[in-house]
Amino acid sequence: MKCSIIGLGLMGGSFGLSVRDFFDEIIGIDHNEIHKKEALTLGLVDKIGTFDDVSDSDYIILAIPVRGIIAVLKEISKIKLKKDAVIIDFGSTKETIVNECPKNIRKHLVASHPMAGTEYSGPNAAISDLYTNKVMVVCNIEKSGEIQKQKALKLFEKLKMNIKFMDAKEHDRHAAFISHMPHIVSFSLANAVVKQEDKNNILTLAAGGFKDMSRLAKSNPHMWNDIFKENKKNLLDSIEAFKDELKKAKEMIENNKWEELEKWMEIGNTLHKIM
Amino acid sequence: MKCSIIGLGLMGGSFGLSVRDFFDEIIGIDHNEIHKKEALTLGLVDKIGTFDDVSDSDYIILAIPVRGIIAVLKEISKIKLKKDAVIIDFGSTKETIVNECPKNIRKHLVASHPMAGTEYSGPNAAISDLYTNKVMVVCNIEKSGEIQKQKALKLFEKLKMNIKFMDAKEHDRHAAFISHMPHIVSFSLANAVVKQEDKNNILTLAAGGFKDMSRLAKSNPHMWNDIFKENKKNLLDSIEAFKDELKKAKEMIENNKWEELEKWMEIGNTLHKIM
Repeated sequence: MKCSIIGLGLMGGSFGLSVRDFFDEIIGIDHNEIHKKEALTLGLVDKIGTFDDVSDSDYIILAIPVRGIIAVLKEISKIKLKKDAVIIDFGSTKETIVNECPKNIRKHLVASHPMAGTEYSGPNAAISDLYTNKVMVVCNIEKSGEIQKQKALKLFEKLKMNIKFMDAKEHDRHAAFISHMPHIVSFSLANAVVKQEDKNNILTLAAGGFKDMSRLAKSNPHMWNDIFKENKKNLLDSIEAFKDELKKAKEMIENNKWEELEKWMEIGNTLHKIM
Repeated sequence: MKCSIIGLGLMGGSFGLSVRDFFDEIIGIDHNEIHKKEALTLGLVDKIGTFDDVSDSDYIILAIPVRGIIAVLKEISKIKLKKDAVIIDFGSTKETIVNECPKNIRKHLVASHPMAGTEYSGPNAAISDLYTNKVMVVCNIEKSGEIQKQKALKLFEKLKMNIKFMDAKEHDRHAAFISHMPHIVSFSLANAVVKQEDKNNILTLAAGGFKDMSRLAKSNPHMWNDIFKENKKNLLDSIEAFKDELKKAKEMIENNKWEELEKWMEIGNTLHKIM
């Protein structure tokens, strides 16, 4: 079985590491010359290939930004794939991907989003257990071919992933709340502190809480900018919901409504009962 | 050497565990009957005592909320302490404590704030390495007696803590940015998600990033309410600084100013170069 991975960053590179034993041959494909060399040196893939490798691959993994995924799907629609080939994309937003996937390859595609990642990027950031015990969201599965569906799900199970089926539109809204907006919040916190005159003194006090809250602000600005662009409407809605809560808290503090503030915090506490 | 710890929650209890080998006798003092029993069962202290134990203690640790610390200092000022006794308070804000400490015991007090903690509270949450390698902020040390200063600093060094000296007023402003405001932000995030109709579906997508961002929202509402009250002005200032950044980000997203947004994120990235 041959697996081609397009995109050798954190996601694609970690995927290569995790599926080493499942395939006879793992091919890495990337624009970036440095990434190709690193991926090979780090043993993330068996060899570096080209787009030509796609046509006889059994699995084609697209671990690149959403716009790139859509462009590659258009290229793939022009070539002949193996009959049972499955294309698995890891795009962070799913609606445009499922809508813009060319019809002639739609049944080959299993639109997926692994809820896994770190604040680091590039082949050097790849880790072998990135996917283990994480959630894999699979969108609009009814549009995938039966064989492709079975092949993808079996692979995710072998990776010990927890599969959740979801509508692409719903996924994008949820992802805004659980991931995209929290990145904006973390970047806002980092910016607020960095812009203080006495930032160095402030940071001498940083303990675990602040480190957790600012970790996402280590993320790659260019990559996240692309994600924010793709999910603009949902992102703005989720920022609005967050802003409303912050505003309430601020007003309760200003007006010494301490009992109300305590009740509001108790509501926040309940999150961990359902999570 | 006798050490009395007033307050047997996470901070006092963990302190008891960490200093076991440094003292002949560790006495635990608390209002709460359940906490006293738990602290003894868990071996956080050698025995449970009363306020009378303070008068012949060499070290007196105040691990209770700020208002409680001020009340206890007033009680202590009425009794005769050992000549070289050192009182170490762990209050989350320092200005009111150093200002309101009765003059006759001021040289006994070393006003300190360990930058350590977890989202849990009570004796059951106590852990033996809570203080190891953490920052201990010591405020207005010039007002403490020389012997008391030496005794306190030696103890903190034995705990492998990283000591930082700071003015109490400055400490309170910094603590707002690094700890108090991030708690409000985390609670706002938790409330924003909990109040969504489809919160359960949203939370199926929660990965490491969201867990980190919402961890502080597990904290004890009553305890944090007290901290927010004490540091109201600084807290509001720091919320304002955060809100300004969030507003900027939202406007850049609304107006498709993606290049500007990327630059803004790059500023956030620099936090980790100085931290």
